[in-house]
Amino acid sequence: MERLPRLKLINSITGYKPANLIATINGKGQTNVAIISSVVHIGSDPALLGFFMRPMVTERHTMENILETGVYTINHINSDIIEQAHFTSADFERHESEFDKCHLTPVFKDDFLAPYVSESNVQIGMELAEKVDIKLNNTILVIGYVSHLYIEQDAFIIDSGLDLKKADTVCISGLDSYHSVEKIASFPFARTNNLPDFGNR
Amino acid sequence: MERLPRLKLINSITGYKPANLIATINGKGQTNVAIISSVVHIGSDPALLGFFMRPMVTERHTMENILETGVYTINHINSDIIEQAHFTSADFERHESEFDKCHLTPVFKDDFLAPYVSESNVQIGMELAEKVDIKLNNTILVIGYVSHLYIEQDAFIIDSGLDLKKADTVCISGLDSYHSVEKIASFPFARTNNLPDFGNR
Repeated sequence: MERLPRLKLINSITGYKPANLIATINGKGQTNVAIISSVVHIGSDPALLGFFMRPMVTERHTMENILETGVYTINHINSDIIEQAHFTSADFERHESEFDKCHLTPVFKDDFLAPYVSESNVQIGMELAEKVDIKLNNTILVIGYVSHLYIEQDAFIIDSGLDLKKADTVCISGLDSYHSVEKIASFPFARTNNLPDFGNR
Repeated sequence: MERLPRLKLINSITGYKPANLIATINGKGQTNVAIISSVVHIGSDPALLGFFMRPMVTERHTMENILETGVYTINHINSDIIEQAHFTSADFERHESEFDKCHLTPVFKDDFLAPYVSESNVQIGMELAEKVDIKLNNTILVIGYVSHLYIEQDAFIIDSGLDLKKADTVCISGLDSYHSVEKIASFPFARTNNLPDFGNR
């Protein structure tokens, strides 16, 4: 296959992807924010999240800032900031902040060094735990500890976690498509003694 | 926080997750299939996908089979197999196949050793490329090359990749909720010279 159709196909075959903005700052106070579709849950206790960075300009600035400060934030993309979020992936100069260029607002909370995206309904403060070099294709897996978590109040339910629908979080397919989501089913924790009677349908 | 609310919360904070079944076989012909919400795109050329395994029983069988055979398949969860897929995570015995127990059908194609899930509209044959031990919490990142790809014909569009809506692929939030998806926006590749005029809204 040709390069572009291949790129689009392979970027779509894992299924729907989470839509997040990673925000950072360097030692000179220059902020950076980048859309990332590869944020992944690695563990709950300790609470560890990962994401993959490619050796591209926008993402390189993010990586440099994380290595310099040891912190970053993960911010959900809500339906009302999709366009701003998408265009953070443009190839801006080092001295330009995607916050300014894409009309997003950095906000600082509780003495945490990295900025959050003010417009986001779910904001996660992260401390770098480990940087894993994936030699197969020169990507980097960045793993961090969840250190702060801010959720719009009515999106958090103590017995069931975060309600992504109330948080207005969207998801991504491929390189350029954004989607809203409707819950269609939920099930109890699976045990061998609570299996549904699949055979009688 | 207590263990269970914490588990539910941290499993939901990355946003929506892709819904996939990983299918494997061991040298004795015993098949295994497990629901995994951590499949992630790592690169397009070579086409590399990853997923994270925890040291749990169901997932351990999957890992053992992958190490034994070097291959596995990733199969999208469509809306009509959500319940079967969910219950593959029950703690079955080693000699029981989740295919049988959860009424899914293994199918073998093109001399590939690992089974695909027949009911799935998107089936990906994978060759193990690298196993990365994440020492922070004893999880494993499994990275593989895409070697085969089967897509229901009308879900593939040469210029835009896989249409996940036509494939009827669903997504997951938290540990137990499944969602259908509606496209709400798509945008051209972001460049500094095609930024929208955010300021004039």
